[in-house]
Amino acid sequence: MVAPSELEHSMEKLMLTFHKFAGEKNYLNRDDLQKLMECEFSEFLKNQNDPMAVDKIIKDLDDYRDGKVTFHSFFSLIAGLLCACNEYYVKYMKH
Amino acid sequence: MVAPSELEHSMEKLMLTFHKFAGEKNYLNRDDLQKLMECEFSEFLKNQNDPMAVDKIIKDLDDYRDGKVTFHSFFSLIAGLLCACNEYYVKYMKH
Repeated sequence: MVAPSELEHSMEKLMLTFHKFAGEKNYLNRDDLQKLMECEFSEFLKNQNDPMAVDKIIKDLDDYRDGKVTFHSFFSLIAGLLCACNEYYVKYMKH
Repeated sequence: MVAPSELEHSMEKLMLTFHKFAGEKNYLNRDDLQKLMECEFSEFLKNQNDPMAVDKIIKDLDDYRDGKVTFHSFFSLIAGLLCACNEYYVKYMKH
């Protein structure tokens, strides 16, 4: 078996982070998402300077209005953050 | 400055992989995508067992039919692969 590439390793990390906070379930509830954001995006949360930030994010991500963030929805959050980072990178850091 | 979390580090890796293969441009052309897939998803390409695999992928990703894969489109590819991996993980490996 070939060792995973660095990109594959990063993708695995994304997936396993979701499951680390989801636990036995296959979704994140509000508390799980709060913990995940505090552990993994602490600077982002601090910069938001908004105690309701996680509630607003979960409202955006919770497609079915049942308080459950699926892997698919979680990945939309990552995509949104990363596309914003990419715009910044291209504009100010790439060249 | 706080050190990036492991998740942030993985997200950065995803973004920088795109730019590594895009070079000075801010998109991947067919050759760039071929090289990226060969370097980063070699097992996946081998399992596809289809010399046209990269052409099919670029056709799916190339929103504007100009042969250019933007960061946003590249991330759709990652999302598709990762959602498939996640289904497999939940079904066969999680518990």
